[in-house]
Amino acid sequence: MIRIGIMGYGNLGRGVERAVMKNPDMEVVAVFTRRAPETLKILTEGAVVASVADAEKYVGKIDVMILCGGSATDLPVQGPQYARLFNIVDSFDTHAKIPEHFADCDAASREGGTVSVISVGWDPGLFSLNRLYGRCILPDGKDYTFWGRGVSQGHSDAIRRIDGVIDARQYTIPVPEAVKAVRRGENPDLTTREKHTRECFVVAEEGADLARIEREIVTMPNYFADYDTTVHFITKEELERDHKGIPHGGRVIRSGETSDGVGHVVEYSLTLDSNPEFTSSVLVAYARAAVRLAKEGVSGAKTVLDIPPAYLSAETGEELRKTLL
Amino acid sequence: MIRIGIMGYGNLGRGVERAVMKNPDMEVVAVFTRRAPETLKILTEGAVVASVADAEKYVGKIDVMILCGGSATDLPVQGPQYARLFNIVDSFDTHAKIPEHFADCDAASREGGTVSVISVGWDPGLFSLNRLYGRCILPDGKDYTFWGRGVSQGHSDAIRRIDGVIDARQYTIPVPEAVKAVRRGENPDLTTREKHTRECFVVAEEGADLARIEREIVTMPNYFADYDTTVHFITKEELERDHKGIPHGGRVIRSGETSDGVGHVVEYSLTLDSNPEFTSSVLVAYARAAVRLAKEGVSGAKTVLDIPPAYLSAETGEELRKTLL
Repeated sequence: MIRIGIMGYGNLGRGVERAVMKNPDMEVVAVFTRRAPETLKILTEGAVVASVADAEKYVGKIDVMILCGGSATDLPVQGPQYARLFNIVDSFDTHAKIPEHFADCDAASREGGTVSVISVGWDPGLFSLNRLYGRCILPDGKDYTFWGRGVSQGHSDAIRRIDGVIDARQYTIPVPEAVKAVRRGENPDLTTREKHTRECFVVAEEGADLARIEREIVTMPNYFADYDTTVHFITKEELERDHKGIPHGGRVIRSGETSDGVGHVVEYSLTLDSNPEFTSSVLVAYARAAVRLAKEGVSGAKTVLDIPPAYLSAETGEELRKTLL
Repeated sequence: MIRIGIMGYGNLGRGVERAVMKNPDMEVVAVFTRRAPETLKILTEGAVVASVADAEKYVGKIDVMILCGGSATDLPVQGPQYARLFNIVDSFDTHAKIPEHFADCDAASREGGTVSVISVGWDPGLFSLNRLYGRCILPDGKDYTFWGRGVSQGHSDAIRRIDGVIDARQYTIPVPEAVKAVRRGENPDLTTREKHTRECFVVAEEGADLARIEREIVTMPNYFADYDTTVHFITKEELERDHKGIPHGGRVIRSGETSDGVGHVVEYSLTLDSNPEFTSSVLVAYARAAVRLAKEGVSGAKTVLDIPPAYLSAETGEELRKTLL
């Protein structure tokens, strides 16, 4: 049995716990929290809830620690900190800072003789894999990534910070005409505005100036100004009834030619009922790979691009060749 | 520069030559043929056309030999034969015999200190990869492979062997309702007949008994009897005008749950203008991986499941992490 530790018990940590239940070769040994451990209720019978301060005591009792914190402040610290002690897997997704995070975890893992698998999930993660395969197989071509329809937590949070807003949910939506043009192999040049639209469902305070809130949303730099944005004001009840889930998804499309006029289109798409639960399932599959690499004596940081696909599986090479090649 | 040898110059060999032209870090050094070498015209300036009998003389002059023969009789012999001398890549696609072919090439490659990458292409190949990733990430689920719309060479050949048939083209077509049900996450149980239909375009001899030909096609065991098959009789001119290409494609769909009622659908699809040209492009990307593995001192047989995705690329890990993770 692969012994899993979960660091952090938010949406992602809870998703990891559920994902482990779907994998009979794994068990959750401990969940680590910054809250008072006795206040946390977990699903796994027999697993310990412990304080993050006690994590070090679990060296030798956990085969891989899955870090379920956020990329802004948690993972840049926790990655190197725990990579010295455990094999780790994280979902670090601040694209611009991946090289730095990789270097930090790599140094810590080499020091500790462990494996860190960083930036695991669907983007970065499975989408990165598909961009890579696409580019290598159709080098004379172009790739496009479309996100959605799905909830962007960052954009929802940005709306909530506006004065007079009680709650909000923001959906990122790919522009259907753009997706179709890419699928037809037209390799169009697309601006930000031409690729995605944004749709916002906002609960405002009673008597708030709705026109002002809408203006603040649609003109917000980085988040909304470069997009066509639609704002709907709804009641708190409507938000809870119609927008409770965290669905997401998207697609990576590579189109290219192998000779004049001979074109090909490769499309990889995800339709996810729950973004955190799916991301967690990817983390758990890569946790298996981390343990296998460590057993082989590998140490250092890895990403999904470095890991042989077969390492995600509990089956042997013989079984895989026979059943799914 | 990676020096490529091409063994066999049919559709696949010609596709490999074109694919190499799209990869600036590679060059075709020699094309080997069973025909009289002086009768062969190739596209690559400076490359040699040689007899298969002389292949052994190219040891040390070729980094990887891409075997472009057929799976029925060529590759079972050529794989082990050339794996003793060169790093090889092949597209062996007789699913039931892959374990045996793997063992043969593995033994030859270990003896020769080379790397054999076998069963490369899109199925087996990229579709196998997607079945693997799907199963590991959504273990509580089901996967479906649909082929087409595309030309099946084997089925077209089978029709041509019928008395009174001059030429034929057979298209494999997924049943749209089946694809839709799978995409909705219904995990249906589908019979062979419910998954694909077959459409045949047949040129018959003048005065041939068309009803008899049609009956022989639709009742042919293994090839057509288990499918709903449509037969169209057309002229030789219509066949050449409308059915000249070798398009193909298909999709692998994995659908599964991460907790009760929380479902996800992963879909990987290919739309290919030319089946052999696309397959060739996959072979060429894995040729790069074979050379890199051999340089690291690896020997033996590998499949797409064993090879780190980054090995397909000419770029460094740093570049890949920065640009596409």
